[in-house]
Amino acid sequence: MLPESIRWNGISIEVLDQRKLPDTVEYINCTTVEHLANAIETLAVRGAPAIGIAAAWGIVMAYKRGESISISIERLRTTRPTAVNLFWALERMASASDYELEARKIQEEDIENNRKIGMYGQKFLPAESTVITHCNAGALATGGWGTALGIIRSAREAGKNVRVFACETRPLFQGSRLTAWELEQDGFDVTLICDNMAAYLMKKQKIDAVIVGADRIAANGDTANKIGTYSLAVNAKKHGIQFLVAAPKSTFDMSIPNGDAIPIEERSEGEIRALTGGQTVPEEIKVWNPAFDVTPFELISAIITEDGVYAPK
Amino acid sequence: MLPESIRWNGISIEVLDQRKLPDTVEYINCTTVEHLANAIETLAVRGAPAIGIAAAWGIVMAYKRGESISISIERLRTTRPTAVNLFWALERMASASDYELEARKIQEEDIENNRKIGMYGQKFLPAESTVITHCNAGALATGGWGTALGIIRSAREAGKNVRVFACETRPLFQGSRLTAWELEQDGFDVTLICDNMAAYLMKKQKIDAVIVGADRIAANGDTANKIGTYSLAVNAKKHGIQFLVAAPKSTFDMSIPNGDAIPIEERSEGEIRALTGGQTVPEEIKVWNPAFDVTPFELISAIITEDGVYAPK
Repeated sequence: MLPESIRWNGISIEVLDQRKLPDTVEYINCTTVEHLANAIETLAVRGAPAIGIAAAWGIVMAYKRGESISISIERLRTTRPTAVNLFWALERMASASDYELEARKIQEEDIENNRKIGMYGQKFLPAESTVITHCNAGALATGGWGTALGIIRSAREAGKNVRVFACETRPLFQGSRLTAWELEQDGFDVTLICDNMAAYLMKKQKIDAVIVGADRIAANGDTANKIGTYSLAVNAKKHGIQFLVAAPKSTFDMSIPNGDAIPIEERSEGEIRALTGGQTVPEEIKVWNPAFDVTPFELISAIITEDGVYAPK
Repeated sequence: MLPESIRWNGISIEVLDQRKLPDTVEYINCTTVEHLANAIETLAVRGAPAIGIAAAWGIVMAYKRGESISISIERLRTTRPTAVNLFWALERMASASDYELEARKIQEEDIENNRKIGMYGQKFLPAESTVITHCNAGALATGGWGTALGIIRSAREAGKNVRVFACETRPLFQGSRLTAWELEQDGFDVTLICDNMAAYLMKKQKIDAVIVGADRIAANGDTANKIGTYSLAVNAKKHGIQFLVAAPKSTFDMSIPNGDAIPIEERSEGEIRALTGGQTVPEEIKVWNPAFDVTPFELISAIITEDGVYAPK
């Protein structure tokens, strides 16, 4: 059984500390909005839908503690810039009459939506499939079931046999630490590769699909997702492999015409400087660390949502 | 001043331990062929031309110690399968009449060849250039000057201003630990990125060239090089960026018709399991770790050698 990523206990929010996985399964008990904001900023809780859910419970907590709702919303809005589900969930909370009911709905709807995404998405996979995924768009990143990994789970429910290659996802190894672990816990056949091996894998083996989640989708279908997604999409096109994006409708930002306008978070150089075995890259050497990239819609075979499938004509 | 990667001291071979860079500059004194073979296998000395040079000195050492030349050659041949310069150097040594003279020639010719490669290669770069490189094809990987990084050095000598993005090169971080460090020591403007960021970088900024070395080039021009090279080539083509391979003629293997026949070393899973901060990927999760990939000649703008330039028509 996978641990839940976010638990509301009636007073505070317990978030699974995803930075410590897979070595340690440990919850952080966020008792204030500031504490929760910190957990989001430092990636203890991560994944676009999960961030939205955590923020929604943050407003419930603020209400119960008698803290200002508008200040709490503002604080949570500043945590991370790219994933739009955060802003979407906070807007829903801002106009809710019953905060606790609304937060619960956001969380439960997310699982239902993932199930629908899985149902639509699994149709793209043959009975015997090999897929590549990147970062973690699984149960850990959502209310449960997962978006990209939800498709893989739904394919198994439909009797299909899916083998997964997980890209490790530098710099923070969400693929190694979260996806490979999540899928292995769940009994899937999963093999870990470095991000730079995916193209060669596509050339050497029959790959049926690349499946990823999304952090923000512009009105024209351009999709921001974890850095490395764009390279996978270019390589999938080159090798004639379907490139599937799995995301709830809350990931769409219709106010943004195309991917160029999506704000891309740049994170600290330290995330890349720290190597294995305690080695580090010297401070004199500059580092560029964009956390996301944008994949143009024309490289995407289908965006799979709870309402159905969008594909370039 | 960069430290030399290989020094013959008249009795034994001192190799710079490249596994410890950039934290520690330390030489291993290889006093037996077995010791040297081990240093090659464990990547204390690495880089296709440098491996050839080290192996050549290994034969000198075997001769001086009265060890069997043929057994020494056989032992060194088994160290690493992909880079052909190793086999080329050992063949030269096998038919040499004066071992020490031949080893010295192999080492000195390599530097001269790199200078010529640099001279031909720098013509591909404009006066103000931004390039991407992968792994380490620098002074550390050769007798000195470097192949890919030799072109960058020669461009500077020719009065050009070259800015470099170094891909970190998972799993062993030769880009972070060696290339970024080597270029920074040498006063270049270098920025480190994760391998999965290169495609997005190509989209966001004007990149004039991707420049890499090579471990083995088949008769048709298909090129084996560090894993991740193929993905860079696909992305360079997509973005209309020249893709340059810099390698001495000793990297060509005319006995091999095309890249499919190049043996690709698969290294231990442990290289990928070890994450930062002491975390590891659980043993239950499978890992695929090819050390090289093959880039087809049609994705290569030019292969630059000491004898001139080869380009697909």
